[in-house]
Amino acid sequence: MSDEYFPTVTKIEFKGPKSKDPLSFKHYNPDEIILGKPMREWLRFSVCFWHTFVGGGGADPFGSPTYIRDWEGDLQGMDLALRRIDVAFEFFTKLGVDYYCFHDVDVAPEGANIDESFANLDAVTDYMLEKQKETGVKLLWSTQNLFSNPRYMNGGMTNPDLQVFCYAAAQIQKIMDINHKLQGENHVFWGGREGYQSLLNTKIKLECDHMAAMYKMVVDYGKRKGYTAQFLLEPKPREPSKHQYDYDAQTTIAFLHEYGLKDYFKLNIEPNHTTLAGHEAVHDIVVASEYGMLGSIDSNTGDTLLGWDTDNFPMDLAQTTAIMAVVLEQGGLGTGGLNFDCKVRRESVDPVDLFIGHIGAMDTYALGLRKAAKMKEDGVLKSMLTERYLSWSTDPLGAKIEKAEATLEECVEYAKSHGEPNKISGKQELFEMIRNGYIYG
Amino acid sequence: MSDEYFPTVTKIEFKGPKSKDPLSFKHYNPDEIILGKPMREWLRFSVCFWHTFVGGGGADPFGSPTYIRDWEGDLQGMDLALRRIDVAFEFFTKLGVDYYCFHDVDVAPEGANIDESFANLDAVTDYMLEKQKETGVKLLWSTQNLFSNPRYMNGGMTNPDLQVFCYAAAQIQKIMDINHKLQGENHVFWGGREGYQSLLNTKIKLECDHMAAMYKMVVDYGKRKGYTAQFLLEPKPREPSKHQYDYDAQTTIAFLHEYGLKDYFKLNIEPNHTTLAGHEAVHDIVVASEYGMLGSIDSNTGDTLLGWDTDNFPMDLAQTTAIMAVVLEQGGLGTGGLNFDCKVRRESVDPVDLFIGHIGAMDTYALGLRKAAKMKEDGVLKSMLTERYLSWSTDPLGAKIEKAEATLEECVEYAKSHGEPNKISGKQELFEMIRNGYIYG
Amino acid sequence: MSDEYFPTVTKIEFKGPKSKDPLSFKHYNPDEIILGKPMREWLRFSVCFWHTFVGGGGADPFGSPTYIRDWEGDLQGMDLALRRIDVAFEFFTKLGVDYYCFHDVDVAPEGANIDESFANLDAVTDYMLEKQKETGVKLLWSTQNLFSNPRYMNGGMTNPDLQVFCYAAAQIQKIMDINHKLQGENHVFWGGREGYQSLLNTKIKLECDHMAAMYKMVVDYGKRKGYTAQFLLEPKPREPSKHQYDYDAQTTIAFLHEYGLKDYFKLNIEPNHTTLAGHEAVHDIVVASEYGMLGSIDSNTGDTLLGWDTDNFPMDLAQTTAIMAVVLEQGGLGTGGLNFDCKVRRESVDPVDLFIGHIGAMDTYALGLRKAAKMKEDGVLKSMLTERYLSWSTDPLGAKIEKAEATLEECVEYAKSHGEPNKISGKQELFEMIRNGYIYG
Amino acid sequence: MSDEYFPTVTKIEFKGPKSKDPLSFKHYNPDEIILGKPMREWLRFSVCFWHTFVGGGGADPFGSPTYIRDWEGDLQGMDLALRRIDVAFEFFTKLGVDYYCFHDVDVAPEGANIDESFANLDAVTDYMLEKQKETGVKLLWSTQNLFSNPRYMNGGMTNPDLQVFCYAAAQIQKIMDINHKLQGENHVFWGGREGYQSLLNTKIKLECDHMAAMYKMVVDYGKRKGYTAQFLLEPKPREPSKHQYDYDAQTTIAFLHEYGLKDYFKLNIEPNHTTLAGHEAVHDIVVASEYGMLGSIDSNTGDTLLGWDTDNFPMDLAQTTAIMAVVLEQGGLGTGGLNFDCKVRRESVDPVDLFIGHIGAMDTYALGLRKAAKMKEDGVLKSMLTERYLSWSTDPLGAKIEKAEATLEECVEYAKSHGEPNKISGKQELFEMIRNGYIYG
Repeated sequence: MSDEYFPTVTKIEFKGPKSKDPLSFKHYNPDEIILGKPMREWLRFSVCFWHTFVGGGGADPFGSPTYIRDWEGDLQGMDLALRRIDVAFEFFTKLGVDYYCFHDVDVAPEGANIDESFANLDAVTDYMLEKQKETGVKLLWSTQNLFSNPRYMNGGMTNPDLQVFCYAAAQIQKIMDINHKLQGENHVFWGGREGYQSLLNTKIKLECDHMAAMYKMVVDYGKRKGYTAQFLLEPKPREPSKHQYDYDAQTTIAFLHEYGLKDYFKLNIEPNHTTLAGHEAVHDIVVASEYGMLGSIDSNTGDTLLGWDTDNFPMDLAQTTAIMAVVLEQGGLGTGGLNFDCKVRRESVDPVDLFIGHIGAMDTYALGLRKAAKMKEDGVLKSMLTERYLSWSTDPLGAKIEKAEATLEECVEYAKSHGEPNKISGKQELFEMIRNGYIYG
Repeated sequence: MSDEYFPTVTKIEFKGPKSKDPLSFKHYNPDEIILGKPMREWLRFSVCFWHTFVGGGGADPFGSPTYIRDWEGDLQGMDLALRRIDVAFEFFTKLGVDYYCFHDVDVAPEGANIDESFANLDAVTDYMLEKQKETGVKLLWSTQNLFSNPRYMNGGMTNPDLQVFCYAAAQIQKIMDINHKLQGENHVFWGGREGYQSLLNTKIKLECDHMAAMYKMVVDYGKRKGYTAQFLLEPKPREPSKHQYDYDAQTTIAFLHEYGLKDYFKLNIEPNHTTLAGHEAVHDIVVASEYGMLGSIDSNTGDTLLGWDTDNFPMDLAQTTAIMAVVLEQGGLGTGGLNFDCKVRRESVDPVDLFIGHIGAMDTYALGLRKAAKMKEDGVLKSMLTERYLSWSTDPLGAKIEKAEATLEECVEYAKSHGEPNKISGKQELFEMIRNGYIYG
Repeated sequence: MSDEYFPTVTKIEFKGPKSKDPLSFKHYNPDEIILGKPMREWLRFSVCFWHTFVGGGGADPFGSPTYIRDWEGDLQGMDLALRRIDVAFEFFTKLGVDYYCFHDVDVAPEGANIDESFANLDAVTDYMLEKQKETGVKLLWSTQNLFSNPRYMNGGMTNPDLQVFCYAAAQIQKIMDINHKLQGENHVFWGGREGYQSLLNTKIKLECDHMAAMYKMVVDYGKRKGYTAQFLLEPKPREPSKHQYDYDAQTTIAFLHEYGLKDYFKLNIEPNHTTLAGHEAVHDIVVASEYGMLGSIDSNTGDTLLGWDTDNFPMDLAQTTAIMAVVLEQGGLGTGGLNFDCKVRRESVDPVDLFIGHIGAMDTYALGLRKAAKMKEDGVLKSMLTERYLSWSTDPLGAKIEKAEATLEECVEYAKSHGEPNKISGKQELFEMIRNGYIYG
Repeated sequence: MSDEYFPTVTKIEFKGPKSKDPLSFKHYNPDEIILGKPMREWLRFSVCFWHTFVGGGGADPFGSPTYIRDWEGDLQGMDLALRRIDVAFEFFTKLGVDYYCFHDVDVAPEGANIDESFANLDAVTDYMLEKQKETGVKLLWSTQNLFSNPRYMNGGMTNPDLQVFCYAAAQIQKIMDINHKLQGENHVFWGGREGYQSLLNTKIKLECDHMAAMYKMVVDYGKRKGYTAQFLLEPKPREPSKHQYDYDAQTTIAFLHEYGLKDYFKLNIEPNHTTLAGHEAVHDIVVASEYGMLGSIDSNTGDTLLGWDTDNFPMDLAQTTAIMAVVLEQGGLGTGGLNFDCKVRRESVDPVDLFIGHIGAMDTYALGLRKAAKMKEDGVLKSMLTERYLSWSTDPLGAKIEKAEATLEECVEYAKSHGEPNKISGKQELFEMIRNGYIYG
C-alpha cells in the first residue's frame, strides 16, 4: 500500500528532446556539464512553498478556491501544516529540485498570540530540518510575510502605527533565527504593503525612514548573531499597494544608497515585477548584475498585457536564454538560485498540473542555458558588441575620460578637430537575426 | 501701422472669475498676495521656446506640419532666428510671464561646423540679452539638445562612439557659457537618447559610466568658471528611447548616488513623464521634494491612456492643486519655476490658440494655488495626517527607533507586551471628501 | 435600547455647500428641480449589495479580510443572510437612495443542491420584497453570479462542459423569476468568466455561439413569461479572464448584431471597465448613448495607472460632469440608474466609511449634474460644436450624402471645383477652457 | 559599370539552417511544398513601399532623419519618384518577394491641385505597371493616404468640413482606378485620423455616419466599374488619433454591421495594432478568421511595453507560428498576404539593414509555417482541444441548443438531474509544454 501523495508520479527523469512523455525532462539533465559546471549548479532550481502547497487554492478576486487537495482531507492546524511538509518534500524529491523557499505563515498556523505562533513555527521547522537532512533538499531562502494578515493593511515596516512596526520586527527576528537553523542561504524581504494607496494620507519619507531604521536593526542583529544568509530585497512596483517603495531595481538601489545600506543587501529580481514596472522582462536582471547587485531570481513570467502579477510558469525560450546569458556572464548566482514563484492556473486543478508546470519551466530554463552557453562559446554576439564600443578603448582620450582625468575643454577640442562624426548603424536587426539563429536554430 | 506679430491681442489682464473673455485671466492675478508672497513668485511661470515658436509646426509621426506662422514668411537661417526672438518676447510680454526656457538648437541655426554653429548662437543670444533687458523677462533655464540631430541617434553622452561624446561635450560647454551670459537661473539636462533601443547591442553600465564622467567634467568646469546656475536632471522613462537611463525621480537619484554626484544636481520634474513611468502625476514631485531634490517643474499634463508624451496644457484643477500644495510645503521652488513644456494640439492652428492654451493653464495653476493655500491655512488635512502617525511621536520607543538607537530585541519585546494592534481605518474616502470640499467647494 | 446597526448615523440630510459635517450632503438635494426634474430622478442612485454588505471583507490577492462587521456576530447561513437584509435596508434608508442591486449569491447561501439554493433564495427574497414595501426602496436590477463558484472557472455560458452551461441556465431562469417578483427594472448580465485565459485551449467562436444560444433562450423565456425588465449586458475587457468576450461597448454591440440579438439588449456601462479597455472613462457611455444603447451606469471610478478594477467611489468632478452631460442629452436613463459598484478601500475598516464613500460619491455626481445642467442651459459648448459641423447642413451636398443619394463622382467634382480646403482650428484648448469655467467656476 | 542600387547584394538564396551568411535564407525556401502548397503561396510575402523607400528617413518625434539614401542624390519631384520605383523593384527582385503595397502619396509627388497630383500618379503608376510586367512582382494592395497631409488633420471621411470629405473621396476614387489598372488584389482603408483627439469637440456618431456614407458610395462605384479588388479595413486603436473609430477587429465588425456593410469588407489585421488595443498579438487574427473576416495581415510586430506602433520586423517564432497556424486552418489567405509593414530602426542606417530586416522576418515566418504545419499534421493539440468540448457533441442536448431548438426549461431540467458538474482541468501548462515541444523542439 502506497503512502505517497503523488502515487502516479515517479521521479522525473531526463529522457531527451524526442521524449513525448509529459512527465519527463526533455532538456534538463542535472549532472550534465555545461561550461564547466553541472546544469543543476548553474540553475539552482527552487520550488516555492506558497503557490505550490498553500496558496489560495486558486481563489482570485472574483472567485472561490477551485481545488482542495486530497491530501489535506479534514486536517487542520498543526496536523495540516505537518502533512504539507511531507507532501512538499515528496514533491521536491520526485521533481528533482535541490532547493525550496517559504514564508513563515506558509508553513505553520498562526496562534492566539506571538508566542503561540512562534512555538508552532519552531515545531514545524524542526520537522523541516529533519526532512532536509533526510532528502538532501536545501533551503534557498525564507522570508517573513508582512502583507497577508490584516494587521499589515497599512504597511509593516512603514505602518503609521508603531505597534505594527514592532510586530513586524518580531516576525523578522523570528524568521532570522529559523532561517539560520535551517541553513537558508539567503533571506528575502518583499514589501507588498510597504507603499501607499493614496498620497493624501501618506508621508512617504517618514515611512521610508522607518523602513530603513528596521533594516539597520536587522543588520545589527545579524552581525551580533553571526547570521550568514545574504539579505535580498525584492522590488515590485505595485499590487497590492498602488505604489510600492521598492518599485524596481534602481529605485531599490536608490533607497539603499540614501540610507547607507548598500553593502548589506543584494536584489532578488522577478521578471514579472520588472514588466509591471514598465521595463523589458530581463532589464532589472541586467541592471542589477552589471552593478553587482544581482543576488537571486524569482523565475516566473507574466503577461505584459495584464496589469497584475500572474506568476505564470516561464515557457518563453527567448526570455530564459536572455536571463541565463546574464547568469553565465556573472559566473553564476552565488548563493542565489532560480526560485519558481509560479502558480498553476486556477483552472489547472489536477495535482499532476503541478508537475507539468514545473517540468515545462525547468526545461525552458535548461534549454535557455544550453542556448546561452553556445552563444557564449561562439562569442559572435559579444564581439559584435565589443566592436561597437571600440573607439573608447582605441583612442587614448577614451581611457582618460573613463579615469576621470580629462576636462571638458579637451573633449571640446577633440570634437572640433575631428568634425562631424560618422553615422554608424546600430544593426539591431542583425543582432536579432544572429540571436534567433542560436535560439531557434 | 502695427509692427506687432499678434496685433489682435493686447496684454492679458486679470478680469476675475466671472469674465467670459477668453483672452483674460480669471484666476491669475500676478501681484495678489497669497500666503505672504505675490502669485507670480509662487508660480514663476515660464514659456518654452521649442513648442511655442519652433516645434515641428504640428508634425507628428503620421502627418506633416499643419501650420506655418505668418511671421515666418520666407525667412531662413539667422533672419528667421532673429524674427522668432522678436515674436517670442512680444508673446512673453503680452502673456505676462516672467520667464522663458530654450534649447541651443531652438534659437539659432546649426552651421556647417561647430564654430559656425557657435557663432550663430553667440549672435542670437546677444540679441536675446538685449530683449531680456528691454522687457524684464528672465531666463529660467537653457539646455543643450543632444537628441534631434541624427549624430545623436545612438546617444549623446552615452554614445558608443567617443567622437559623438565629445561633440556633446562641446554643445554642453557652449550652453554653459551662454546660460551664464543670459543669467539663466538653472541648467537642465534631459537625455532622450541616453538609453537603449535593444539590450542586445548595449552595455548599460559602460554607457552610464560615460554619462557620469561627462557630468563630473561639467561640474568641474562650472566650478572653475564660477558658474552659478543650478544643474537639473529631467527624468523620463522612454520615448524616443525604448528605455531612458533617467527613468524617473528615484532612478535618477540612484544614478547620482552611484557616481557621487548627488550634491551637484536637483531634478526638473515633468508630470507627463511621471505618468509614463507608471506613477501618479504628482508622485515624482512629492518624492523629489521630500528628499530635498525638487528643483523645478515642467508644468504640462499627459493622457494616462496614451503611451507617449502629449505635452498638453494642464487643465485639471485637482492636479494643479496637488502640485501647488507641494510647492507651498517646501516654501517655493527657489530658482526653479513652472515651465510650460506644452504644445497646442496640431489641429489648433490659429496663433490665438497659443494664448488660449497658456491662459487656460496659468489660470488652472493659479486657481490650484488659491485652493492649496486655503487648505494649508485651514490645516485640516495636515492635522488628519499628523494624527495618523501620532504613535511615533507619543511613544518614546518611536523616537528611539528614528534616532537609530533601538535594537530589534526592544521592538520584539514591545510587540509581545502590547499584543495584537488595533486595525485603524486609513480613511481614504474621508481625505478625498475633504480635499474635494476645498477643490470644488 | 437601539436596534439599529448604524446607531451613530441618522438620516443623511442636505446641508448645502458650506457644511463641514461629513455625514451630510453638500450638493445632493434629492427633490430640488434641475431642468424640470428632481435630482433624484436624474440620478436614480443605487447601492450595490455585494461590495457593501458581503464582499470579501477587504480581502485582496495578497491579504485576508480586514473587517468583520459587528452585526454579523456569529450568524451563519440563512440567519446571516436575513441579518444583512435588515442592515442593508437601514443603510439604504439612512443614506436616502431609491434603488439597490444584487447578485443571487449575495443575498442567500448556496445549498447542497440547486433546489436547496433556490429555496433559500425564495425565502430571502420574500423578505426583501417586504422590506421594499416597508421602505419604498426599489430594485434597480439583479443578476446571476456565474463567476465566483469554482464550477464556473472555465466559463458559465461559454463553458466547454455542457453540464456547466445548463447549471448557468438554471441560475439565470431563477433570477428572472425573482427579479420579476421584486419588480426589478432591469436585468444585468456580466460575464467575468465568459472569455479565455489561453488561446491554446479555447474555441472562441464556438463559445460565443453557445453564449448567444443562451441569450436566445432567455429572450424567448422572457417573452413567454411576460418578463418586463430591460436586459443589459455589461462590458469588461479582462479580469478575472485574460480576455473577456464583452470587451467594451462596441465589441458587445458587434456580438449582438452578429447573433441577431440587438433589439433585446442595452448596455450597462462601468467607466472603470472602459478605462481598462483603453478608452477615456466616458467613452463607452458616449458611444452607447449615441447609438441608443445606453441602459444604465455602474458609477464607480478606477485608476488608469493600475491594471485592475479598483471600484473606487467617484470623486472627480470633471468625470461626473461629463457623464451627467450625456445623461441630460439623452433625457435621462429611462429604467436605468447610477449604481455604485464601489467598495471602500480595504484599509477603510470603519462602518462609517461606508457612508462617507457613498456621500462623497453622491455629492460628486450631484454637483456634476448641476454643472452639466448649467452648461446645457447656456448652450455655449453645444453651439461651438454645431458651428464646427456647419458645412454639412449648409451645403446641399451634405444632406445628399447623409441621405445616401450622392455618388462618389459628385463628391470628386465638388472637391475639384472647390480646391484646397481651409485648415480650420479644432480649438481643443478653447473648448477645455470654457468647460473648466463651468466645472471650476 | 553597375547600374544597380544595391550593388553588393545579389539575389537572396535559400542556404538552409546552418548558413552563417546573413544575406541568405535559413528557412524560407519558396518552392518547397508544405502541406500541398509551395511556401511562397502560404506566405504571399509583400514589401511595403512607405517604410522601405520613402518613410521619414528615420525621423521620429524627437529627431530628424538619420539617413538619406545615396540613390536619391539631388533628385526631386517626378525624377525622385521614378528613381524610387527602380530601386524598389530591384529590392523586391533581389529579396524574392512576389508582392508589394503602396499609398498614393508614397509613389508620386502631390501637385499644385488635384488634377496635377492625379496626373503625376498616372505617370508613375504606368511605369510601375511596366515594372510589374518586367519582373513578375504583383500588387497585393494599394491605399489612399488620408492622414499625412495637413488638410486631413481633423479627419478624412470623418472631417467636420464637407470639403475635406470630398477631397478624400477624390483620392479614394483615384486609387480605385489605379489599383484596378495595376491589378491590385485588395484595397485597404486605414483611418488614422478617423477618430478624435477630444470628446469635447466631436460628434462621434455623425462622423461615423459620414464614414459609412463614403463606404457605400465606394461600394456602389466599385460595382458600377467592375472593380475586383477585395476591400479591407485595417483596425488600429489610436495613434495618431487619441481614439480611432476602427479600434480593433470587433469594433470594426460592429461598424460594418451597424451600417449594413458587412458583406463588402474583410479585415487587414496588424498584430502591433492588436496589442495596442490591449489584446494578445494573435487575438484579432483569430477572431477575424473564425468569423470569416480575415482578409490579409500586416506582418510586423510591436513592443507591448511601448505605447506606440513600433512596426518592428517580426523575430518571435512563437508569434509567427501562432499566426501561421490560423492561416493554415483557414486554408490560406485567399487574395491576402503577409505584408511587411515594418521599418528598420532609425539607427539602422545602412541600406543592407533593409535586407537583413526582411530576411530575418521572412525566415521567422517561414520557420513558423514549418512548425505550424508539423503541429497540424500531428494533430495532437487539435485533438486535445476537441476533447475539451466533447460534451457538446456527445450529448443530444448540445446539438439541440446549438440549433436553437432548446428551451431554458430543458437546460434547467438537465442541470437539476445531473447535479454538480465535475471540475475539469483546463491544462493550460500542458498545452504550453506540448506547443513548446513543437516550436523549440
